[in-house]
Amino acid sequence: MADSKPLPALNGNPAAAEALLQEVFGIVVDEAIRKGTCASEKVCEWKEPEELKQLLDLELRSQGESQEQILERCRAVIRYSVKTGHPRFFNQLFSGLDAHALAGRIITETLNTSQYTYEIAPVFVLMEEEVLKKLRALVGWSSGDGVFCPGGSISNMYAINLARYQHFPDCKQRGLRALPPLALFTSKECHYSIKKGAAFLGLGTDSVRVVKADERGRMVPEDLEQHIIMAEAEGAVPFLVSATAGTTVLGAFDPLEAIADVCQRHGLWLHVDAAWGGSVLLSQTHRHLLDGIQRADSVAWNPHKLLAAGLQCSALLLRDTSNLLKRCHGAQASYLFQQDKFYDVALDTGDKVVQCGRRVDCLKLWLMWKAQGGQGLEQRVDRTFALARYLVEEMKKREGFELVMEPEFVNVCFWFVPPSLRGQRGCPDYEERLSKVAPVLKERMVKEGSMMIGYQPHGTQGNFFRMVVANPSLTLADMDFLLDELERLGQDL
Amino acid sequence: MADSKPLPALNGNPAAAEALLQEVFGIVVDEAIRKGTCASEKVCEWKEPEELKQLLDLELRSQGESQEQILERCRAVIRYSVKTGHPRFFNQLFSGLDAHALAGRIITETLNTSQYTYEIAPVFVLMEEEVLKKLRALVGWSSGDGVFCPGGSISNMYAINLARYQHFPDCKQRGLRALPPLALFTSKECHYSIKKGAAFLGLGTDSVRVVKADERGRMVPEDLEQHIIMAEAEGAVPFLVSATAGTTVLGAFDPLEAIADVCQRHGLWLHVDAAWGGSVLLSQTHRHLLDGIQRADSVAWNPHKLLAAGLQCSALLLRDTSNLLKRCHGAQASYLFQQDKFYDVALDTGDKVVQCGRRVDCLKLWLMWKAQGGQGLEQRVDRTFALARYLVEEMKKREGFELVMEPEFVNVCFWFVPPSLRGQRGCPDYEERLSKVAPVLKERMVKEGSMMIGYQPHGTQGNFFRMVVANPSLTLADMDFLLDELERLGQDL
Repeated sequence: MADSKPLPALNGNPAAAEALLQEVFGIVVDEAIRKGTCASEKVCEWKEPEELKQLLDLELRSQGESQEQILERCRAVIRYSVKTGHPRFFNQLFSGLDAHALAGRIITETLNTSQYTYEIAPVFVLMEEEVLKKLRALVGWSSGDGVFCPGGSISNMYAINLARYQHFPDCKQRGLRALPPLALFTSKECHYSIKKGAAFLGLGTDSVRVVKADERGRMVPEDLEQHIIMAEAEGAVPFLVSATAGTTVLGAFDPLEAIADVCQRHGLWLHVDAAWGGSVLLSQTHRHLLDGIQRADSVAWNPHKLLAAGLQCSALLLRDTSNLLKRCHGAQASYLFQQDKFYDVALDTGDKVVQCGRRVDCLKLWLMWKAQGGQGLEQRVDRTFALARYLVEEMKKREGFELVMEPEFVNVCFWFVPPSLRGQRGCPDYEERLSKVAPVLKERMVKEGSMMIGYQPHGTQGNFFRMVVANPSLTLADMDFLLDELERLGQDL
Repeated sequence: MADSKPLPALNGNPAAAEALLQEVFGIVVDEAIRKGTCASEKVCEWKEPEELKQLLDLELRSQGESQEQILERCRAVIRYSVKTGHPRFFNQLFSGLDAHALAGRIITETLNTSQYTYEIAPVFVLMEEEVLKKLRALVGWSSGDGVFCPGGSISNMYAINLARYQHFPDCKQRGLRALPPLALFTSKECHYSIKKGAAFLGLGTDSVRVVKADERGRMVPEDLEQHIIMAEAEGAVPFLVSATAGTTVLGAFDPLEAIADVCQRHGLWLHVDAAWGGSVLLSQTHRHLLDGIQRADSVAWNPHKLLAAGLQCSALLLRDTSNLLKRCHGAQASYLFQQDKFYDVALDTGDKVVQCGRRVDCLKLWLMWKAQGGQGLEQRVDRTFALARYLVEEMKKREGFELVMEPEFVNVCFWFVPPSLRGQRGCPDYEERLSKVAPVLKERMVKEGSMMIGYQPHGTQGNFFRMVVANPSLTLADMDFLLDELERLGQDL
């Protein structure tokens, strides 16, 4: 039976809770922030899975543990985790550790609310609106709508669902069987979430028509138009084109103006997956790469990538001013979105989304922006371009590096050609042998903990490295390190 | 052009970053944790939207701000946010502030990685597996699969998509138009995400057949069977039943054994939406409410609700051992899930999901569980039941409270009957007048900041309050406060 005392442990004991959190925060600062971003520390401490399981003692038992044990667990979790804020973590499209964004994340986690009503998220409902407005302004829209989604893949799905609903509002109630066969279009360089989304939304992956890309990875608008005409000839109804601004591997920007022309001619929804490249809009120097984006109907943009806002910060932006989001997704749950509230219920934005509870993803970006200003963020973006350019020029000076292509963004794709393969290009097994280099080097760097960089095969090309310059703390020395370290790791190959 | 110095502000200046974070953490402890969970402080500081916009100065400008300004912004964000950890926040199915879970969240945010590969999330790939295994064991499964999703709504969608794929694997490639019309079944008390999911997945809301609930809000299995037979007679193919363990408003538990019998007879996938009630499985005393859950094919369970793990912590659990998740959702992106890695690529779990990047949601629950033990968490759950029971008994002693029904869970639904309406039941406008009470009281409590509790109309019944006993720090005094405060706020009505 309940009594008047709170439970043991920390429930209802604020002083003990504070003391624990102070201790944990100290560990976080020492281990994850100070060491985790220090170039002379390891970027990762590799352990084989079985050994790591032993070290972590993951099992959840009936008995609780002492504070000392818990603190030791916190240390172990950090010790064996990869340091994505480390200046030699080049592995993904996100990296770096922005202190202001992290401050925003800690506040978010402590306030622990859901974004669905003004009632329980007054600050964040207004803030999300303001942040989305700013992002829309950078796209070139003075009005519109939007929402933060749990990742770019889901933003892309939203775009597909919204386009489908706009063309065929019946779909919401009656489903796809009441509709003609639909077709959407994207390039072969697009992110895999487009096909995942088509499957999840019931359209099927066959509904995705794959358009050619040119030698630099950019969608070919003429081929897009051909595919549209072909789809129509086959009896399908085209409804959406998903262009990409910043492709995942090559960092290519689809020609948005030409694609927008095609969409206009055929009455199609233009979605721009700018999850990776969207942040380039902040740069006066480089935003021309996205010329035409203002003609899109929807844009997916992840500030957790190039702006280092922290996972996840994924905006879906819409040009629509007809409340399409809410009409498409709304279900009017009466327990949450009561219509007899004492404030303007238009502020309860939760019915715009297919989630119910939704995390607050705006504060981290807002606080970082307030601190850095648009100018500071612009400098960051410009700097990543400059560092990527420096890296490319340095590669050209060294014997063992071969560029896949001149990059137009901050993805630098290249082969490291080890000594034994230099000058062998054209030999029958050259490609095959070269393709085996990256996995070996990757294993070596991870096991040493010196660096992390991704590789992949791509089309007909064997494994090459994809260097991503995104961490705002990078310097020329980190670029030099990358080159030196690959030479060191690969000298015996 | 890039130079060798890092950017100004905090990029690349670890000492300044640390100092900022220390300051912010101090503010978080003082304002959000200490005051935010203190009964004598306000649960919220209500401001009208226009006034709040002014106070927050939300606009994002070109110029950055000083550290002092940023710290003041952090204080303002916390000041005007609702304190969901406050002992008088009863408004949602989540509340309270668990220090260990928050510690896990702070570490998660600092490490800032994505859950998709062992390469960049070694600790969390293994930890997620262990946590899911533990949750499955509580369901009654010694094997299976699962994943953490961004909220219960998306978990429910996953279940629908998986059931559809299992019945009709063709759907992934060819889409719903290649399939017969499908039907799924849930009760009228189910969460609104089932209909949202059906729309999003292209099935359409019409595909959701709404089964009767009894007077306590529990699905009627006989009516379920009738609906299945009817759907078949209409030419639809039934494929899934979504039962609810802990309905949103009434806290009802559908009779899972009887529903499982029906599913077995008709060969249907049984999904249990236990987003709210799943945590009752931890209690030896109360877990009988979910008897039969082990016969389900999938279970959605949100430890961020009754266990206070923090938003979001939403597990989708599967009985399947055939790699259904990966077969259904996989897209084999070659840039992320390389097959020539130097470790077992089965550890790269990212292709199980429809997201690409995915937040780490396991650590907060794992750390809390390690600290409290299963026993500690069981005590918590038992205690919420006991406090809810106490509240119900106290309500029966007071004139102004009328229960909607005897609760079987920790949702206590009731009307506050103000003095002017007492003894008036049966009068022609009684229901209408009673329905206007809750919105007025809600406005008063929010504007005073003394308490937050939700209300809603439900079926044919006018607005009543839904008290949720979930915060692990609650005491009998908080229950007494609720009653006293409603009497105080409503004394002139």
